[in-house]
Amino acid sequence: MAKEKKLVEQITSMDEDFAQWYTDVVKKAELMDYSSVKGCMILRPYGYAIWENIQKDLDARFKKTGHENVYMPMFIPESLLTKEKDHVEGFAPECAWVTFGGENKLSERLAVRPTSETLFCEHFRNVIHSYRDLPKLYNQWCSVVRWEKTTRPFLRTSEFLWQEGHTMHETREEAEAETLQMLKVYEDFYLEALAIPAITGQKTDKEKFAGAEATYTIEPMMHNGVALQGGTSHFFGDGFAKAFDITFAARDNTVKHPYQTSWGVSTRSIGAIIMTHGDDNGLILPPTVAPIQVVIIPIAQHKEGVLDKANEIRDRLADTLRVKLDDSDQSTGWKFSQYEMKGVPVRLEIGPKDMENNSCVLVSRVTREKKFVSLDNVEAEVAAMLKQVHDELVERARRNLAEKTHIATTMPELLDVAEHKPGYIKAMWCGDVACEDAIKEQTGGVKSRCIPFTEEKLSDTCVCCGKKAKHMVVWGRQY
Amino acid sequence: MAKEKKLVEQITSMDEDFAQWYTDVVKKAELMDYSSVKGCMILRPYGYAIWENIQKDLDARFKKTGHENVYMPMFIPESLLTKEKDHVEGFAPECAWVTFGGENKLSERLAVRPTSETLFCEHFRNVIHSYRDLPKLYNQWCSVVRWEKTTRPFLRTSEFLWQEGHTMHETREEAEAETLQMLKVYEDFYLEALAIPAITGQKTDKEKFAGAEATYTIEPMMHNGVALQGGTSHFFGDGFAKAFDITFAARDNTVKHPYQTSWGVSTRSIGAIIMTHGDDNGLILPPTVAPIQVVIIPIAQHKEGVLDKANEIRDRLADTLRVKLDDSDQSTGWKFSQYEMKGVPVRLEIGPKDMENNSCVLVSRVTREKKFVSLDNVEAEVAAMLKQVHDELVERARRNLAEKTHIATTMPELLDVAEHKPGYIKAMWCGDVACEDAIKEQTGGVKSRCIPFTEEKLSDTCVCCGKKAKHMVVWGRQY
Repeated sequence: MAKEKKLVEQITSMDEDFAQWYTDVVKKAELMDYSSVKGCMILRPYGYAIWENIQKDLDARFKKTGHENVYMPMFIPESLLTKEKDHVEGFAPECAWVTFGGENKLSERLAVRPTSETLFCEHFRNVIHSYRDLPKLYNQWCSVVRWEKTTRPFLRTSEFLWQEGHTMHETREEAEAETLQMLKVYEDFYLEALAIPAITGQKTDKEKFAGAEATYTIEPMMHNGVALQGGTSHFFGDGFAKAFDITFAARDNTVKHPYQTSWGVSTRSIGAIIMTHGDDNGLILPPTVAPIQVVIIPIAQHKEGVLDKANEIRDRLADTLRVKLDDSDQSTGWKFSQYEMKGVPVRLEIGPKDMENNSCVLVSRVTREKKFVSLDNVEAEVAAMLKQVHDELVERARRNLAEKTHIATTMPELLDVAEHKPGYIKAMWCGDVACEDAIKEQTGGVKSRCIPFTEEKLSDTCVCCGKKAKHMVVWGRQY
Repeated sequence: MAKEKKLVEQITSMDEDFAQWYTDVVKKAELMDYSSVKGCMILRPYGYAIWENIQKDLDARFKKTGHENVYMPMFIPESLLTKEKDHVEGFAPECAWVTFGGENKLSERLAVRPTSETLFCEHFRNVIHSYRDLPKLYNQWCSVVRWEKTTRPFLRTSEFLWQEGHTMHETREEAEAETLQMLKVYEDFYLEALAIPAITGQKTDKEKFAGAEATYTIEPMMHNGVALQGGTSHFFGDGFAKAFDITFAARDNTVKHPYQTSWGVSTRSIGAIIMTHGDDNGLILPPTVAPIQVVIIPIAQHKEGVLDKANEIRDRLADTLRVKLDDSDQSTGWKFSQYEMKGVPVRLEIGPKDMENNSCVLVSRVTREKKFVSLDNVEAEVAAMLKQVHDELVERARRNLAEKTHIATTMPELLDVAEHKPGYIKAMWCGDVACEDAIKEQTGGVKSRCIPFTEEKLSDTCVCCGKKAKHMVVWGRQY
């Protein structure tokens, strides 16, 4: 029994103006606020609680795969940042620079970390001496700064929160396996915790991380067909190890350089949640990371016994779920729309009539389907609906991804799709950066997302230059 | 059955050189490492794991008392920092200043947050409009920067990790109650999680936080009698609210300024753990925050069945405890001293002879007492010994605090104690800052720690000037 009435009128409709819809949701669901520091945002309690749940889920996955957390300084001396040539070229232009400590001008300026490869390398040099010291499997949770000209909440801000994993290994093979393992951890996390399916694969050389040999990526598609780079995993070979003179005594008594990886997921993932699942009534949060998984709304709460019963149900559910009972004096209609706006996956209504029947009403935030369930097994019923919400979100996102993925075998086809059909374009590519540049220029911004792990052979020739094709690439616009 | 042999020879003895002992422990237990950024430290996995356990414990206490986590930007524009006069005077001299974003000189320089009152106030101004919006009970976990000339691991570093709570209230009384509630939370946390008893009370005006009306403090005493400010809770009145023009529509339809608090605990607390509990064999960690609560050392591990049994015990304990089995090929003696150094509260030994008796050996890190226990109820036995370790640590620290607290009623007495007896000095005070200054100068660094909540009347007159005494003050040197 779907209830189609739009209860929250203040949000711009998605179809009308997706960017404005996004901003409305972010502000009205109280996820963030602007600050007087240009490009930096405030994570409000509801937004930060999502991040805490993301951290908890991801951190458990990292620990399960043998990683340990550490904390590195937030500053990088300029001389340290410049040790690896490609890396500094990539990051120096967007660093915030500290030049004064108190009243004193610093003898060397310090970058606020844009990423911490260089700091980790300096530390690895101190703690890695023998193959017995390997692997080092480290991660840190912190904020980083990349000076951005134009910013958007969660998607592109001058400061953002993230985790950055940094590992060192005895062999190239082991480091490559780690790089792919962590991409798989991200893929599982996106699917299982955020209910977001995605394309995964390798970045082209043009799009890879500054200083990496290979970058792997997870690329979920937003509701409007635009890509969001959800997480990346980099294989460095021994490039940084050589630049930082990190060596170890190997099993064969030679001295070797270790092989390195890094990988990261940030608060952008919250942007991905909003734009993958949200609708014209606001947020829809996947149950695993929703700060409130079930909201209990008492109906006719002034009637005898209603609040007692609501409290009793709250206490029963609170053992295993994040549950909130709203017994404020706001109207029931206001409460319905408020928690829809905030994307609470399941609403539980309990009133005098329900009590007579020893039942309550569950409403799914996705389908708005109402279900009358017995209070005897309300825990199991709520858990089942939460699972259903998760599955429906995955299914909907899968459908969106499939429907908005197109194929192009010629350049006119590609240009036509790029102009008229939002989404991804699968097309063959010769491997030449000139073709990537040409496609980006002619489409006004379509870039290679990745070479997917499972390539299809669409034709023999590059969609752009007509030469022999090397790879199938997924192309698309990005946030 | 105490075993007094000193197994770890590399650590300087505490009595010989306490400062060197501290540095040795911090390095050899692999809690931290230095970085090339002057005054900033690297928290290594073992050190960071302690911080994670501290966070988990404290965060639960904050949430239980109704607080929500948020995240504020790490930068404060200079004009924002200077809005509250006393506050900026206190912090501007030790700020790190960002002056460039990428290639561009900033029009206004940004301080890396030394503390975030000003950022919270700016946000509170946006989100507080009515008494219905109060109280706001916020906390954030982050790092802060205070440019220090001389630094020591955990105790004084240019960047450190902490939590900072910031709250706003309808009335002065409610805010005062919050200030004291959070000090009590800290007191409980220190005692229950860190096994550290402490003196609590109010700071004198000279020692209070820049911009606060009143500062309350928890002051544990280190093993050598020196104080460490363990956490502070500040009552701001409506001073910041006025400076930042934060108002709300009150219940009586007037417009009012809300009342404010802030409170913080940092990674200094790890320094407190080390210096309160450690001994000449290294760290001793309180069980609640120890990364490894029980280490299992197999004896004669090549003998049939030993490792199987050790693994079986590990699996049984791992359900409720943080347990590690060391089956590496290092010698048993090396393992014993290694985990003593790392302060693991309980060691469990299991060998062929124990297996014959269906028993194992538990050794307390504090008393080094050996206990033979049946494997049938090893979970309960280990839990009991962990509780015993906690209680013994508290008891020992209490004894140290009592033994090293002295009374002085005259200035010669105070000077004599300050010179010859490390620890706290209880003495009466007239309330005049001139006497605080005189005592500090004449003793070469003894400062007022606090006016304890439970004052005693030691005499009628100020220990320094002889005028009528207003308060009993606890005095002491500090880290």
